[in-house]
Amino acid sequence: MSEADIPVVNFHPYRWGDPTRPAELPAAAVKALALLGAEAPANGPIEPQDVPLAPPVLDGAAVRALTELVGAEHVDTDAATRIAHTRGWSTPDLLRLRAGDTTDAPDAVVLPGSHDEVVAVLAECARRRIAVVPYSGGTSVVGGLAPQRDGFTGVIALDLRRLDALVALDDVSRTATLQAGVRGPHAERLLHARGYTLGHFPQSFEGASIGGYAAARSAGQASAGYGRFDEMVVGLVLATPRGTVELGTAPRSAAGPDLRQLVLGSEGAFGVITAVTVRVRPAPDVTIYEGWRFATFAEGADALRCLVQGGPLPSVLRLSDEAETAVNLSDPTGVIGAGPGGCLAIVGFEGTPAVVEARRTGAAARLTELGGTPLGTGPGDAWRAGRFRAPYLRDPLLDAGVLVETLETATFWSNLHSLRTAVTAALTESLTEPGRHPLVLCHISHVYETGASLYFTVVCAQSDDPLAKWARAKAAANTAIREVGATISHHHGVGTDHRDAYAEEVGPLAVEVLQAVKRVLDPDGVLNPGVLVPADR
Amino acid sequence: MSEADIPVVNFHPYRWGDPTRPAELPAAAVKALALLGAEAPANGPIEPQDVPLAPPVLDGAAVRALTELVGAEHVDTDAATRIAHTRGWSTPDLLRLRAGDTTDAPDAVVLPGSHDEVVAVLAECARRRIAVVPYSGGTSVVGGLAPQRDGFTGVIALDLRRLDALVALDDVSRTATLQAGVRGPHAERLLHARGYTLGHFPQSFEGASIGGYAAARSAGQASAGYGRFDEMVVGLVLATPRGTVELGTAPRSAAGPDLRQLVLGSEGAFGVITAVTVRVRPAPDVTIYEGWRFATFAEGADALRCLVQGGPLPSVLRLSDEAETAVNLSDPTGVIGAGPGGCLAIVGFEGTPAVVEARRTGAAARLTELGGTPLGTGPGDAWRAGRFRAPYLRDPLLDAGVLVETLETATFWSNLHSLRTAVTAALTESLTEPGRHPLVLCHISHVYETGASLYFTVVCAQSDDPLAKWARAKAAANTAIREVGATISHHHGVGTDHRDAYAEEVGPLAVEVLQAVKRVLDPDGVLNPGVLVPADR
Repeated sequence: MSEADIPVVNFHPYRWGDPTRPAELPAAAVKALALLGAEAPANGPIEPQDVPLAPPVLDGAAVRALTELVGAEHVDTDAATRIAHTRGWSTPDLLRLRAGDTTDAPDAVVLPGSHDEVVAVLAECARRRIAVVPYSGGTSVVGGLAPQRDGFTGVIALDLRRLDALVALDDVSRTATLQAGVRGPHAERLLHARGYTLGHFPQSFEGASIGGYAAARSAGQASAGYGRFDEMVVGLVLATPRGTVELGTAPRSAAGPDLRQLVLGSEGAFGVITAVTVRVRPAPDVTIYEGWRFATFAEGADALRCLVQGGPLPSVLRLSDEAETAVNLSDPTGVIGAGPGGCLAIVGFEGTPAVVEARRTGAAARLTELGGTPLGTGPGDAWRAGRFRAPYLRDPLLDAGVLVETLETATFWSNLHSLRTAVTAALTESLTEPGRHPLVLCHISHVYETGASLYFTVVCAQSDDPLAKWARAKAAANTAIREVGATISHHHGVGTDHRDAYAEEVGPLAVEVLQAVKRVLDPDGVLNPGVLVPADR
Repeated sequence: MSEADIPVVNFHPYRWGDPTRPAELPAAAVKALALLGAEAPANGPIEPQDVPLAPPVLDGAAVRALTELVGAEHVDTDAATRIAHTRGWSTPDLLRLRAGDTTDAPDAVVLPGSHDEVVAVLAECARRRIAVVPYSGGTSVVGGLAPQRDGFTGVIALDLRRLDALVALDDVSRTATLQAGVRGPHAERLLHARGYTLGHFPQSFEGASIGGYAAARSAGQASAGYGRFDEMVVGLVLATPRGTVELGTAPRSAAGPDLRQLVLGSEGAFGVITAVTVRVRPAPDVTIYEGWRFATFAEGADALRCLVQGGPLPSVLRLSDEAETAVNLSDPTGVIGAGPGGCLAIVGFEGTPAVVEARRTGAAARLTELGGTPLGTGPGDAWRAGRFRAPYLRDPLLDAGVLVETLETATFWSNLHSLRTAVTAALTESLTEPGRHPLVLCHISHVYETGASLYFTVVCAQSDDPLAKWARAKAAANTAIREVGATISHHHGVGTDHRDAYAEEVGPLAVEVLQAVKRVLDPDGVLNPGVLVPADR
């Protein structure tokens, strides 16, 4: 199935992805997982329809006022809808909902049909001190959908799914204006019909939306070739309780700071992005993804660095460390062969036949010089076919008593190995219990001339209190990341989980700047309270 | 002379560039200029030593306090130094100083020797309500060095020339940390010694500095290949009256908004950038600049667009319109030949022999398909040799009674011709007087996948009041730019000249955001008052 064919689906409240295609654990994996010391919990998760839910605290007048703005059929207070909009897709989010914890459920879900309705709803919520959680894909893995409730008369989820249009396509400038609620697959469908692609494929692609990409500075798996989402954006429209901010008169400008880059990454704390104008590219004629093997992670990382610094640059460039490569080998679909370990790189090319051929030939020569062994298209095709499927495995793993979670960071090339060592050690140490050893896997997921991101996956036994266990590990990883001077997030964002580490990363004066910006655009502080911006003194 | 050999010079108070290499008008040009109706003014400019200057208003206690912070030898209040730090390099700036108008002269010039000294000076100035004009290259052409004096006890120019070190070079990450006062040629010298280049060559290269590049979002003539300056920056250090903001933990991050992009373009209104970490590239082995001829501007613009959207991308890509091409032809060094007009494009390649050869061959094939005629390296070499020299001609032109000035803007490709038509008409109409017709020349100076910049040069008779004449033309151009929805500046910046148009461009809520950011970082409002940010309510 190509990206363009993935249907728009309603998601399960606490299982990843398309509910019509749940994943099962391969038998070999079940056996391997026993080595972690994991035991399936005595009781499975509470079924969605049985999850307890407190009645909404929002008063009738507030519901009526919102209803007047968007129509009665676009304000939902039923339990199923509220639960479906509770938190995001992080493992702690899932664990809490599986255990029946709905304390972060919104009191109502409001579905505006236009930018003006968003502005009106925000103004109304400001007047009534109702907290607003902007909700488009609902795929946050950093607590971006769990706002502070204290001091508010209620919480609504502002679901943008009705804003799902391709508003404009400029064939000359190669830009597309998309509304915020357009989900990844739908965006590709709309653009493919006109011959274009966004080229943006984060792992949350099936659920995430244009507004979320922008609000959280998403990076897709083909970022080497197509750029990060923030690099694609040339214009955006922001709805705030005080009105509209519209930015983007040119691709680049020297007219002051680039305020687009202040809105990108603001995670709903400054306003609700309702539309984004992005650079698009012709849909590729040719797509070739190949595997390369390097003896060590250090050798592979050097090869990736040489390619991104000296070219030719592939569209996709990633490298698994020895541990992650070995785990992939244990997968029955693994096709690397019986080599003695090493590290798997995925090197993908997209474009016209001539461009792909030239870059592929050039890159192959360079990678060979740099110690790589070509593995053909088998590993590349396998990775590409499964790239949105991996997170589906988390649900049967959770059922089997396994804790699986990811985190990511980025730094400059000269600091990369220190970062990997420090975070791997922090995660390993904090997740090890007597007789229970974690798997800590790592890959380079995104590359730049000056540095790269590292993406970590941990797999371990849940033990008695998996939430507390992960919280300790996450805290240890955050400390390690900050101590080596890397960023607390390369593409997951800040949310509530990274808020304190983020404040430390940018420093107290920058935090005051964020607070001041928020006070201007959201003087009543109703927008995603507690997310991104630390509370004002 | 290569870029690396240009000496660090002390500039003339009101003549462009290296005073040891003044330009003379070619005889052919003098003849041609008579057609404009220009007449040399009866009196030449006032010589710098004769320019009248009011005594400094800064009180003795303030001077002593600043002296204690930076040392007596680093606080200058003599007339020559004050005049040398008066305003920037725009034509109105030169006209005012030539006429003896020193109302914008600073009361003292302070030269801090470290970041900490900058912070201390800013804090002291905040306490004493002394306005601070950050000054590195002094090359602003938009009134960025003419702050409002009202309400302040005095004005100092904070000259950063002592901050002139290459602080760090990371060969693995390919980043360099340069202090703000390093001028363009010195930066290239420092980097060339280590095998690198910044690849940043704005026309102000000889005078401009790293801090100014960052504060004003500079774009160099090779931006197609090396990127704009804001794209090179991965880290920066900002001194404010309240302390330090240090940003840049990774090439890219999803940890909140990209605050680097809030500081870049802040033009000294939020703080003083004291150091910048930039991506560097290996110094090119090969540099080939070629000329191409297109029958019309529309055809040439389409060719540039196809190249930047489909590749292969040159390092330099620019296109003069018919009028600008014709004027170049009248230059005795013009080597386009006797073709019937048309438009000259400069297409330059820099890099390794293999990369240059591949791109040059590919680009030549594309440009030929797109209607271009190759003119060989003659026009390219001539342009490259003269690229920093053109502004030198302004001084003898001013002496000859000619008004010459430039402005620039940018928009998306589909809007480019409307923009050029509107601005050309606005400038032509407002500068035309009975018997005196202006030359209005235009070129595409910077290209992006989604759009391009347009750079306009006007040449006309000064008439009785050249300042008023230009003010009318500038106002008409600004209106035209805003009416077609383009940006008020692609790389010159905002300063005071564009402040109102800029406020209109980003809208009232965004202006409040800028004011709020300034209140946090500069609560006493002493930093470059009146520049960039409109006065608070």
